[in-house]
Amino acid sequence: MKAARFYGKEDIRIEEIAEPELRAGTVKIAPAFNGICGSDLHLFHNGPMGLPTADTPHPLSGETLPVVLGHEFSGVVEAIGEGVEGLAVGDSVVVEPLMVDGTCPACKAGKYNLCEQMGFIGISGGGGGLSEHIVVEQRWVHPVGDLPLDQAALIEPLAVALHAVEHARAGAGQVAVVGGAGPIGLLVAAVLKAKGVKTIVSEVSSARREKAASSGVADVVVDPSVEDLSAVVAAHTDGAGADLAFDAAGVAAVVHQLLKALGAGGRLEIVAIHTKPVELNVTGELIMGDHEIGGSIGYANNHPAAIELARSGKVNLAPFITSKILVDDIVEQGYQRLITNKDNEVKILVSMR
Amino acid sequence: MKAARFYGKEDIRIEEIAEPELRAGTVKIAPAFNGICGSDLHLFHNGPMGLPTADTPHPLSGETLPVVLGHEFSGVVEAIGEGVEGLAVGDSVVVEPLMVDGTCPACKAGKYNLCEQMGFIGISGGGGGLSEHIVVEQRWVHPVGDLPLDQAALIEPLAVALHAVEHARAGAGQVAVVGGAGPIGLLVAAVLKAKGVKTIVSEVSSARREKAASSGVADVVVDPSVEDLSAVVAAHTDGAGADLAFDAAGVAAVVHQLLKALGAGGRLEIVAIHTKPVELNVTGELIMGDHEIGGSIGYANNHPAAIELARSGKVNLAPFITSKILVDDIVEQGYQRLITNKDNEVKILVSMR
Repeated sequence: MKAARFYGKEDIRIEEIAEPELRAGTVKIAPAFNGICGSDLHLFHNGPMGLPTADTPHPLSGETLPVVLGHEFSGVVEAIGEGVEGLAVGDSVVVEPLMVDGTCPACKAGKYNLCEQMGFIGISGGGGGLSEHIVVEQRWVHPVGDLPLDQAALIEPLAVALHAVEHARAGAGQVAVVGGAGPIGLLVAAVLKAKGVKTIVSEVSSARREKAASSGVADVVVDPSVEDLSAVVAAHTDGAGADLAFDAAGVAAVVHQLLKALGAGGRLEIVAIHTKPVELNVTGELIMGDHEIGGSIGYANNHPAAIELARSGKVNLAPFITSKILVDDIVEQGYQRLITNKDNEVKILVSMR
Repeated sequence: MKAARFYGKEDIRIEEIAEPELRAGTVKIAPAFNGICGSDLHLFHNGPMGLPTADTPHPLSGETLPVVLGHEFSGVVEAIGEGVEGLAVGDSVVVEPLMVDGTCPACKAGKYNLCEQMGFIGISGGGGGLSEHIVVEQRWVHPVGDLPLDQAALIEPLAVALHAVEHARAGAGQVAVVGGAGPIGLLVAAVLKAKGVKTIVSEVSSARREKAASSGVADVVVDPSVEDLSAVVAAHTDGAGADLAFDAAGVAAVVHQLLKALGAGGRLEIVAIHTKPVELNVTGELIMGDHEIGGSIGYANNHPAAIELARSGKVNLAPFITSKILVDDIVEQGYQRLITNKDNEVKILVSMR
C-alpha cells in the first residue's frame, strides 16, 4: 500500500509498504483526511523529537525510523477484528492516536495523557493516517456518526482544546481571553463559546483576528500590539478583569499580558508548548491576585465529548479547514505553506488520493 | 494609653497616646497577645512598605507615620458601640486586621483580600494590637469562645494557611508536600492534617524539622539538602508523586523541587512572598504534568473556620508559641531573636504588660 514515511529531518518519502494485518481486538481503517499539526512541522524541520530514531526504537511500538506519518485523522472502518463490538464496516471514525503503557501511576489514575512512556500513532510508530490502511486497537477508535470526514480530522485538536478548557474549570457566564488565534487558540475559543463563556481573542495577525471573528468564536478581537489588552478586558468586564485566560501562543510576553488581564482569583491555562523558560514575577503576577496557572497537555477521555460538540453543531469545525491537498504535495503545499502563508491557513487537510 | 508606634526604619517608640473613642458599629478591645510576623520584621528592618509614610497617608486610614503596630492579636471586649450585636463585654476575640474600600471589583466579588486599596490595622493606621486599647469595626471582630488568648493570637496566620489550603482545593486522602517549616509552613501542614491530608514536610533546618515532627503536623520530614525530595515523595506514594505541594519558603529552588515532587495533575500552591522572579520551565514543569500553580494571599471569610479548627482541637496551636515577651523588649527579645534564633522560634507573643 501507499504511505508517507518519515526518515528524518526534511526527509519524507511516499512509498509502497506492506499492508498491516487485522488482529483480534483491532479495527482496520481506510484513512480519509489528515490534519497537519505543529508537531508534524517541528518533526519535519528539526528531525526526530525523542524516540524513535533510526537506531533507538520507541519502547511501546518497538519501531525505529522510518515511521508512517499522520496523527490527526479520520477514516472509514474496513474490517473488524475478533472481539470488537460497537463498530461496523463502513462507519466513519477518528483515531485517538496514542500508545500508552497502561501500568504507570498516571495511566492507573486514568490520566493516560501523562503516561511515562507516551507514544503517538503517526509519530512513534504503529502506522499513521498517511497510508491507505491502518490497524488500530479498538480502544482508540471513536465513531463520529454523520460528522463529515473532513471535519472529523479536526477532532484530535478539538480534544486538545476541550481538555484545556475543562482543566481550567471554565463555566457558563465567565469571560475568557485567548492569546493567539492559531488552530489551537481558535478551537479553545470555539469550545469556550460552546460552554457559554464570553471570548476575547488577542492576536497580532489581522488575518487570524479576521478568522476568529468570522468563524464566530470570538466575541471581541484585540490587537495587543496597538491596544492595551488589560484595558480592553477591563472595559468588557466592568473593571473586574477576566475569569480565565488561555495561552495558545507559547510566548513569554503573551503569558505576562494574559496574567495582567486576569481579575481577582482568575486562572491562566497554558496550552502552548514553550521552548524558553518564562520569568514569572510570582508575587505580583500570581500571589497578589490569588491567581492560578494551569498547564494542559493532550487529552484523556475527551474524544467522545469533542465529537459530540462537533456533531451537535455547538462547535462548527468547517471554517477551520482552509485547504485540502494530496499526500504527494505534502511538503510544498502543506508544510511549506503553513510557514509562508501561516496567517491565512488554519488546517490543511491531506488525503491519500 | 501606652502604645508601640512605628516611626520608620528601626525606629519603634513605646509612648503615651490618646485612647481611641468608641463609635457606633465598633467594638473597644483590650489587646492581650500579639504575634510578630514576617511583615513586622520586614517593616522594622527595611522601613515602610508602601503606604503610609511620614508624608503620604494611607487612602483608607488617612493616617501618616507614626502608626501603632500589631496586626496578629487577640483581646477582650471592653465596650460595645451602638448597633453592635452578638458580642458582649468580656468576650475573648480576635481582630481580622483589614481595611478595605468595599467598592472595588474584588470587594464586590467577596474577595476582599484582593481589595485594590487594601490596608492592614497595625501596619497602615487604624490603631494596632500593641496598645492598651483599640477600637475596631464589628465586621473585623471574631469571638473565639474559650480558646486561650495566647493561642488566639495565632488565628490570623492560621487563617492565611487555611485560605491557601482551600485555594489549593485540598481534600482528605491526598498527599501534600510542604516546603519550608517556618510559621506559615507549620500552620499549612496543621490545616492539611486537620483535613485528612498526609503531610511530607521538607525543611533544611533540623530544629524546624524537629518542630514539624514533634507538633504532629508532619507525617514525614525530609531534609532536601541531603535527600532527594521527589524520591522520598515517590516512595510514600507508590511512585505516583504528590497531589499537592505548598511553597512556604519563597525561594526559587524550593519551587522547582516541589514541582518535581508532584504527580500527574498535581498542584503547587505558593503561599510565600517571593522577592525575585522564578524562571519557570513551563513545558517541563507545568504542561507535561497537567500541573497547576496557585498563588494565595491573605484571607477572606476564613476567620470563623480557622477559629473552629483551633477550638475543636483539630489544630493545636500551643506548640507554635515559643516565647512570650513584654512590649518594652520587642526589639531585643522579639525582632532580633527571630533573626538570631530563627530556627528555634516559631511565634513570639508580645503583650502590653
